Amino acid sequence: MEFTAKAISEFLGGEIVGDPEVKVNDFSKIEEGRKGTLSFLANPKYTKHLYTTSSSIILVNKNLHLDHKISATLIKVDDAYQAFASLLNLYVQSVPKNTGVDAKAFIDPSSVYGKNAFIGAFTFIGKNVKIGDNVSLYPQVYIGDNVTIGDNTVLYPGVKVYRDCLIGSGCTIHAGTIIGSDGFGFAPQEDHNYKKIPQIGNVIIKDDVEIGANVTIDRATIGSTIIGQGAKLDNLIQIAHNVEIGDNTVIVAQAGVAGSTKIGRNCIIAAQAGIVGHLKIADKVIVGAQSGVTNNIEKEGEIVLGAPAYNAREKKREFVVSKQLPSIYRRFNELEKEVEMLKKKK
Amino acid sequence: MEFTAKAISEFLGGEIVGDPEVKVNDFSKIEEGRKGTLSFLANPKYTKHLYTTSSSIILVNKNLHLDHKISATLIKVDDAYQAFASLLNLYVQSVPKNTGVDAKAFIDPSSVYGKNAFIGAFTFIGKNVKIGDNVSLYPQVYIGDNVTIGDNTVLYPGVKVYRDCLIGSGCTIHAGTIIGSDGFGFAPQEDHNYKKIPQIGNVIIKDDVEIGANVTIDRATIGSTIIGQGAKLDNLIQIAHNVEIGDNTVIVAQAGVAGSTKIGRNCIIAAQAGIVGHLKIADKVIVGAQSGVTNNIEKEGEIVLGAPAYNAREKKREFVVSKQLPSIYRRFNELEKEVEMLKKKK
Amino acid sequence: MEFTAKAISEFLGGEIVGDPEVKVNDFSKIEEGRKGTLSFLANPKYTKHLYTTSSSIILVNKNLHLDHKISATLIKVDDAYQAFASLLNLYVQSVPKNTGVDAKAFIDPSSVYGKNAFIGAFTFIGKNVKIGDNVSLYPQVYIGDNVTIGDNTVLYPGVKVYRDCLIGSGCTIHAGTIIGSDGFGFAPQEDHNYKKIPQIGNVIIKDDVEIGANVTIDRATIGSTIIGQGAKLDNLIQIAHNVEIGDNTVIVAQAGVAGSTKIGRNCIIAAQAGIVGHLKIADKVIVGAQSGVTNNIEKEGEIVLGAPAYNAREKKREFVVSKQLPSIYRRFNELEKEVEMLKKKK
Repeated sequence: MEFTAKAISEFLGGEIVGDPEVKVNDFSKIEEGRKGTLSFLANPKYTKHLYTTSSSIILVNKNLHLDHKISATLIKVDDAYQAFASLLNLYVQSVPKNTGVDAKAFIDPSSVYGKNAFIGAFTFIGKNVKIGDNVSLYPQVYIGDNVTIGDNTVLYPGVKVYRDCLIGSGCTIHAGTIIGSDGFGFAPQEDHNYKKIPQIGNVIIKDDVEIGANVTIDRATIGSTIIGQGAKLDNLIQIAHNVEIGDNTVIVAQAGVAGSTKIGRNCIIAAQAGIVGHLKIADKVIVGAQSGVTNNIEKEGEIVLGAPAYNAREKKREFVVSKQLPSIYRRFNELEKEVEMLKKKK
Repeated sequence: MEFTAKAISEFLGGEIVGDPEVKVNDFSKIEEGRKGTLSFLANPKYTKHLYTTSSSIILVNKNLHLDHKISATLIKVDDAYQAFASLLNLYVQSVPKNTGVDAKAFIDPSSVYGKNAFIGAFTFIGKNVKIGDNVSLYPQVYIGDNVTIGDNTVLYPGVKVYRDCLIGSGCTIHAGTIIGSDGFGFAPQEDHNYKKIPQIGNVIIKDDVEIGANVTIDRATIGSTIIGQGAKLDNLIQIAHNVEIGDNTVIVAQAGVAGSTKIGRNCIIAAQAGIVGHLKIADKVIVGAQSGVTNNIEKEGEIVLGAPAYNAREKKREFVVSKQLPSIYRRFNELEKEVEMLKKKK
Repeated sequence: MEFTAKAISEFLGGEIVGDPEVKVNDFSKIEEGRKGTLSFLANPKYTKHLYTTSSSIILVNKNLHLDHKISATLIKVDDAYQAFASLLNLYVQSVPKNTGVDAKAFIDPSSVYGKNAFIGAFTFIGKNVKIGDNVSLYPQVYIGDNVTIGDNTVLYPGVKVYRDCLIGSGCTIHAGTIIGSDGFGFAPQEDHNYKKIPQIGNVIIKDDVEIGANVTIDRATIGSTIIGQGAKLDNLIQIAHNVEIGDNTVIVAQAGVAGSTKIGRNCIIAAQAGIVGHLKIADKVIVGAQSGVTNNIEKEGEIVLGAPAYNAREKKREFVVSKQLPSIYRRFNELEKEVEMLKKKK
């Protein structure tokens, strides 16, 4: 399908700069633009490509100021990234959906699913499972006994959900992710063996949560491990037993949260960060990449960095000085000698 | 089922403080206590909840000293955490077990399994596999040729065990874990390509090992990668080829051990730590979270921290000073000026 | 099968020191050598075992100088590690290959595969998939619609490939790895919710790539996430959307690369390192273990270390000084007092 700049601009409520009749039939990145495609510019790092790209149409922010002439047609919108996302959404909705229950799936007769279900081949559904409307379970998914899954939720291939867990509506969970494995609880014995603490709780994933691939979310010892509404988790993340993640909190790839820690709403936990157990993290906190949080963070909106993590601005000052340590140390040794000389001269 | 404080106390060999006739039918965390439930108190951080919880019965350590009156009935025991675990174990044993071999599993005719086996749908068992008594293979498990699995071992959904690996008795392996994938061995060639070093060894997992979800344990180049008896591994851990983990060693989530490293018994490797290859780590060593171990640790019981890791007490002293570096550096610059002045005055 | 030192030496073009008639029928590590086995010595750390091993034959580098007499027969070759690898390859080729399409696999009728295919039980192949000759898809693999897989590629159990991805020839992908899950793209809304940015691109894996177990490689937002020819990825690695990895680049376990970063050819990214998004890393760059790369690296062959990462030689000098910080700080405080005294004496 082809669309003119004019049609797209009208759909987005934008303003055209250039030829309104130019047509596109695909998307491209601005730095790899091709004729007949539409690109967007949001990250200022990429502005230079505006003048060299071959893209036919570029979505830009309203306030963009042009330094030179350009060949592409611009569509100015309030937020180029979001406008681009709207167009991608239109495209995605045009892709035909999988439907139907495959004869090669196993569904226990005690379990139920709603209308428009897609249940793929080799997917296993245990006893007393309740699955809402418009749910997609791709092939090779495992759903343990007593699990509940809300409407419009998608589980990609190979997701495993252990017994008793609850997954909300509008959730997306990517391939290979494990929900509800046992928390890591062992009591040391006098003979140096460990005795397993049974993990009889569950995992509750609230509505509109997206979870990436190969994530692990352990069930609670007792009670629930909770992922708050609208939270977004990237790939290869570890969430330990009895953790609670607040609504709309974002956790980036390979980060880990240890047992019983409670993270507030609207936080951002950057990639490869670690948070130790039994802590409380306030709302809107940002934890920098690879940081190690070892204490409660009580101040809303606090930004921390480093391992052990503390205020990011101070930590950055420390980085600046510590990088100079070898030369400072040489100066220090010199100074010691000078003071020694001064003392002798007395 | 309901139990009185009296009955529970007798089972645990404890001592009641309060009403022996109060009844419970569920467990709860002390900080989320509800009437009719039993909680425990072991971590002193949670002591304050003792006075406000609605739990009907609380297991506490013998030596607990009460500051105020409380409404719950206490059961005093030697070790509240272990006593609580015993009760959870009773509960778990009451959950009905899966049994039987599903018609939708594939089992090569050359393979054998013992009595009371549970082999779930879509599980694949290759050639010459030997599986002991009371083994549970959940759905979608893969067992390669020549694998041996001991009695009472549980493999959760989607575990993959490559050919020739040995898994002991009483082991638990959580969903998505990969046992026996190729070690990462490539020989650089003059043309900058890499030539694969075939990995013809295996993985040996001794008895009573528990392994979390989405862990990867690579097979040895030659010989065996070995996980010692009673070792406990959390989620998303990487164990490289020819690594040996000692008995009863604990490794926490997202840690990694590089090739051919040998870790002693009763060690604790905390979360997100990394240990480089070809090292030897003594018994009872503790490696702090996010640490990077780059040298042998020869001293039994040594505690190390940091990246590169060294003695934890010294490392913590370094942390204290390095946090002050910006202010120390200001003082240092000041001092340099003063010395300069003193020199001029001569 | 048994081979004499003479036969092996002739195959490798080596030179025998010792008894040419001694026979071996298995491989062993030099430190665990047994009679009747062949070992190799490449890492100088293991040289001491040369004098104590019970291995019958040892492959060594031509330039090896013996300190004492030894009992084993040596075969001197140009590169002992590569020669050993050649022998392992011979062994691996003698292991019988899986072949045939299992009746318990699901293959959409619109999809095609070449000759000598192995397609295991419970493997799912979607619509319009094109699979080359001699391809092995182990059990429980998922291949989404429109995927293409080149000749001689092996996908181990449970690998999941999302729709539209391209996998080259001669690739090996280990169990549990996810190719083509959605990139982590969400646009923050004014109400603190996040709106998903559809990820409509794909993943392209070029020829001769090896990828370890439980790796995650996200599809591009638009365009492609690209893994260059001959690249080698270890286990549990995160590759975000729109990343490009250059040819023959090696990434070690648990490392992560954030969105849109482009890594050059022949680089080595060591274990647990992280590279932030939208960066460019030159060819032949080495990033040390656990490092955090936060800036472009423009110099070919640069070696960086630390978090934030910079020149490894300088970083090591910083490590040396920062380890002494507590004692330096004591000296500094002393010096301050002395200068104060000197000032007073004036």
